[in-house]
Amino acid sequence: MTRFRLTVEYDGRPFMGWQRQSNGPSVQATIERAIRTTMREDVAVHAAGRTDAGVHARAMVAHVDIDRSISAERLIGALNAGVRPDPVSVIECRQVDPQFHARFSCVARHYEYVIVNRRAPLAIERGLAWRVGPQLDAAAMHDAAQILVGHHDFTTFRSAHCQADSPVRTLDRLDVARVGERISIQASARSFLHHQVRSMTGCLAMVGEGKWSATDLADALAAKDRAALGFNAPPDGLYFVRADY
Amino acid sequence: MTRFRLTVEYDGRPFMGWQRQSNGPSVQATIERAIRTTMREDVAVHAAGRTDAGVHARAMVAHVDIDRSISAERLIGALNAGVRPDPVSVIECRQVDPQFHARFSCVARHYEYVIVNRRAPLAIERGLAWRVGPQLDAAAMHDAAQILVGHHDFTTFRSAHCQADSPVRTLDRLDVARVGERISIQASARSFLHHQVRSMTGCLAMVGEGKWSATDLADALAAKDRAALGFNAPPDGLYFVRADY
Repeated sequence: MTRFRLTVEYDGRPFMGWQRQSNGPSVQATIERAIRTTMREDVAVHAAGRTDAGVHARAMVAHVDIDRSISAERLIGALNAGVRPDPVSVIECRQVDPQFHARFSCVARHYEYVIVNRRAPLAIERGLAWRVGPQLDAAAMHDAAQILVGHHDFTTFRSAHCQADSPVRTLDRLDVARVGERISIQASARSFLHHQVRSMTGCLAMVGEGKWSATDLADALAAKDRAALGFNAPPDGLYFVRADY
Repeated sequence: MTRFRLTVEYDGRPFMGWQRQSNGPSVQATIERAIRTTMREDVAVHAAGRTDAGVHARAMVAHVDIDRSISAERLIGALNAGVRPDPVSVIECRQVDPQFHARFSCVARHYEYVIVNRRAPLAIERGLAWRVGPQLDAAAMHDAAQILVGHHDFTTFRSAHCQADSPVRTLDRLDVARVGERISIQASARSFLHHQVRSMTGCLAMVGEGKWSATDLADALAAKDRAALGFNAPPDGLYFVRADY
């Protein structure tokens, strides 16, 4: 048995999310199906993060154990043939120590949220970014975002379906930057709560639009109450971009 | 009657191209349908360039004449409602002088060709870029590209279906630059021949891969013969990005 570490890119639009579901397609099931059809092995694939329906990954990290003897180079070819026609691509594959665990060994997760700030609907990036019509003040969003950085109880920014034991997390980075009509939000932490990045993004957009002050954001955090959430941004603009080990 | 200038973004994947076709959907027909259903007017829309099947536009310029009295602001809203669900978006609309013609008044057209230089298939950008597996030398591509800049007979880089009277064009710019795994080719000219950007790109990729020298490219140009073409790049990576007036 050999453990392989996979780096996976996927377009989240056609999926119910990373995790295997009884009611629809998932990235995990697509990769497991590819292993079953090409390797004749029935295995579980573990990932650094379990993205929601419609959320994308530029470089999700996962691991899988393969019984038969195969090189990383041949495995990546087999997997990319096997996942077709789903929009999933294994961009890197290498043999790792059996102690490596994509989820439990991960020490930092990085997400990017992409907003396109314009009035016209999206044609090319439909489902790949969140279009926000009203003009957003990205500098004000960045300043307010710093309130959320640090060790906090993020109950306000957590989905009702979150299964984490504790709502306390340490947010290491929440940067907002504009280039032309694009606003990119970079979020880094050891781990995130369910919907945390989308919920933080939704509230930052309210700050950017001038509907909320930085104080309103601080009050929402202090409330530790989901009902204090301003807005939960759609999955479209969210990308899992890196996992550190 | 008022003439309006439209700036249009579209994802070329589901279309047979810009131009109205009897055998499938086109961007032109989509916009004309939107005008018919929302304005009750049966008009022709004219564009700066007639992109091929699968070719995208970030900012195609078009014009249309509307009989009824309507503001540019209301027209853009009506058009964006009318084009749904097709991946077309009118990002700008303004009233122009009736002398303005999107095609004949255009003094420069700008295209970008996007290559993703990696072995793994594309997941997120499938159909939105050309994936090239072998490592490409972008600096060598840029140097060779300068051979094509200027006033030349581009017969070698012209489709057999090209309807232009002359194969002579003046290419003002052909720049190649790499950022990470992305290679961007920027091409500018008053006008281009059918398939010219894709044909130049295909040959530049051969130079990047080391299969062709810069001399081979110069010889292909000098041959003035379609049979001397190295490779015609797919439509996936091509974007119409700007028209100047």
